[in-house]
Amino acid sequence: MAGFGTVGSGLARVLDENRQWITERTGREMVIKTILVRDLAKPRAWPVPQGATLTADPAVLTDDPEIDVLVELMGGIAAPHAIIKRALEAGKHVVTANKALLAEDGYDLYRLAEQQNVGLHHEASVAGGIPIVQTLKESLAGNRIGSLVGILNGTANYILSEMTSNGLDFATALGQAQELGYAEADPTLDIEGHDTAHKLVLLIRLAYGMDYPYAELPVQGIAGIDRMDIEFARELGFRIKLLAQVRDVDGKLEAGVFPTLVKHTFLIARVGGAYNAIRLEGNAVGPVFLHGLGAGSLPTASAVLADLMTVARGAAPHNTGFQRQVPPRADILPPADAESSYYVRAMVPDNPGVLRDLAGAMADHSISIAQAIQKGQHPQGVPLVFMTHAARASAIQGAIAQVQAAGLLLAPPVCYRVLQ
Amino acid sequence: MAGFGTVGSGLARVLDENRQWITERTGREMVIKTILVRDLAKPRAWPVPQGATLTADPAVLTDDPEIDVLVELMGGIAAPHAIIKRALEAGKHVVTANKALLAEDGYDLYRLAEQQNVGLHHEASVAGGIPIVQTLKESLAGNRIGSLVGILNGTANYILSEMTSNGLDFATALGQAQELGYAEADPTLDIEGHDTAHKLVLLIRLAYGMDYPYAELPVQGIAGIDRMDIEFARELGFRIKLLAQVRDVDGKLEAGVFPTLVKHTFLIARVGGAYNAIRLEGNAVGPVFLHGLGAGSLPTASAVLADLMTVARGAAPHNTGFQRQVPPRADILPPADAESSYYVRAMVPDNPGVLRDLAGAMADHSISIAQAIQKGQHPQGVPLVFMTHAARASAIQGAIAQVQAAGLLLAPPVCYRVLQ
Repeated sequence: MAGFGTVGSGLARVLDENRQWITERTGREMVIKTILVRDLAKPRAWPVPQGATLTADPAVLTDDPEIDVLVELMGGIAAPHAIIKRALEAGKHVVTANKALLAEDGYDLYRLAEQQNVGLHHEASVAGGIPIVQTLKESLAGNRIGSLVGILNGTANYILSEMTSNGLDFATALGQAQELGYAEADPTLDIEGHDTAHKLVLLIRLAYGMDYPYAELPVQGIAGIDRMDIEFARELGFRIKLLAQVRDVDGKLEAGVFPTLVKHTFLIARVGGAYNAIRLEGNAVGPVFLHGLGAGSLPTASAVLADLMTVARGAAPHNTGFQRQVPPRADILPPADAESSYYVRAMVPDNPGVLRDLAGAMADHSISIAQAIQKGQHPQGVPLVFMTHAARASAIQGAIAQVQAAGLLLAPPVCYRVLQ
Repeated sequence: MAGFGTVGSGLARVLDENRQWITERTGREMVIKTILVRDLAKPRAWPVPQGATLTADPAVLTDDPEIDVLVELMGGIAAPHAIIKRALEAGKHVVTANKALLAEDGYDLYRLAEQQNVGLHHEASVAGGIPIVQTLKESLAGNRIGSLVGILNGTANYILSEMTSNGLDFATALGQAQELGYAEADPTLDIEGHDTAHKLVLLIRLAYGMDYPYAELPVQGIAGIDRMDIEFARELGFRIKLLAQVRDVDGKLEAGVFPTLVKHTFLIARVGGAYNAIRLEGNAVGPVFLHGLGAGSLPTASAVLADLMTVARGAAPHNTGFQRQVPPRADILPPADAESSYYVRAMVPDNPGVLRDLAGAMADHSISIAQAIQKGQHPQGVPLVFMTHAARASAIQGAIAQVQAAGLLLAPPVCYRVLQ
């Protein structure tokens, strides 16, 4: 095991508590032999499993012929990449929870695993305990996936849930998430949507067998999201969620991470607190919805353990869910051409004619308005809220640029997608 | 393929439409060679797949060395049992959707599949397109399952949903389900809970590795359920669902199929129409919820296809999720000792003292009452509704027998579990 933090200690605990059960299932016993840590002298938050040795030298692990599997739970990219590579070269199976590594720099590892005929498993890399990797790779493998949306970051979802249910503002909700240990000291990856984006890249590979480069994925986070918009959305019958989203639009993939309004009757609107969920639509299975804990010590350990048990059963490597180990580049729908309904809030001065001019800018870009509400006076001006019918991102951007150029707005407008 | 009805035709369609995709995934092409039907002369509702031959003789299928896999979609028990047995003896893999056969008479087939080192797969036998078999067998295999509840019959759920949302009575909702093709002409298996019970027996094997004999499972259906109780439940904040339920109570299994009150905020209360869902609790993963279409041509075909693709990949047989192919008998908690909260409705005459006497009977059996409501006058008497705290089934039965013996009731009382 490389890394002995939250997930590593959870795995040690589950392997210990469920030892007999795991053997009944697999016919093998799993033993943690060596644990790679950065600093041997650092006091450990969890007891080292009986019989295991700590080391700070990766080679002690990767070069030990008695070790069959490397479980990589270090985080980061360069260091785990080097260790996984060396383990694969030594003919070991690898189980990893590392979404950043796989999404940004994983393909050579798949090639190597194929050459070595070993497993490279990563159930724990997306949505923690929810079995979405296995489901896409095997259970729903015969389906063409029309669309997939997911709540894949528990921290962001916790913040939005608290803002929605308890009326907190963003900073307070974030602070509370940090106190509870949901959010890191530096919460950037979570609240800016990058963690969700890493996971989405992996889900696109599994569902479509296509490479959507991480660097090209449109990503909008929830930093500084305004309580006012959560409140307006709620009045309109919606919840705001940070969604990963991908659809097949006539053979092109349209994907991204966006704060999105979701109708309150949808199951995915009801995903609260630190939970994760995925909703997908297959051309045979229809809609499927999976819900569970997307992070944390034991739920993530559950997913790692599933991969370990697959290895223990001696299953033939089935790493990508496809014959090819490196997917071709996706045919990407340019994000400007993506269609969606939108929620737009503009802060305007209390002058006659502003609503007309705003509506005119929408009309100039052929955006059809489904609902418009103007409500009360806020300290920063009068909020005008529009819900549009389906419109291209480029049209929305054009209309917004037009009203900004005309000096109609007191602040940059807020603009979120609406899930159909 | 044995059987060419709704699911068989759906499978033929998906194999055709997703042909190239399936080959990209598995590296193999799947061809339907022979289809066993009962009556060759009968006009077919669906076109026979190109290149396939119809036969009425099972041996044409089971004895053909060119055929690698038997897909059994016939229904019934004795006839498919004989065909599956012969196919396994001939070294063929088997994929079946037949929950009744596996639940009532499947063990010799598992033994045979093991001897022959072939696959015996049944993802489609429980909850249609929802990948619950794979999830229990592999993805959550390292977990001890504390409890599992499921809505496993779309017909029953459709009827209850229509009664709840549209105020229909049972007979009207059943008639509507039959018109829409959800319910069979003889809906007994669905509404009496036997279909749900078959599926529960299979889920118990997968989750616990234990045999809970089908014949011993307590089963209560929804036939004749009263709109009045749906309405009272709703006023109390609950929906009535037909639930399959199993829990580990200190190492003993407590299981059964019961109409159950579910708090309206629970995801499983929001499963509408013909959908299915499963909620389980693992000791590592925590709560997991899966939702999708539990029946129908294409969703069921999706599950059959998943099994076929597992076979096509050449995966080693992994039929039960355990080393042993036949599970030991479960240590069963006697149903009389099962604890639950209950919803009880009694119809009483409008006399003073009846509520006191009823409450007295509850107290005599140490049943603690959480809520009691008495509401208006119905043509059949005054309905008294109790919600109890957790009580043993035997205590509830005892209290009911006592009030019935005392002649306090105008009709047999209604008594449903409440999901905690």
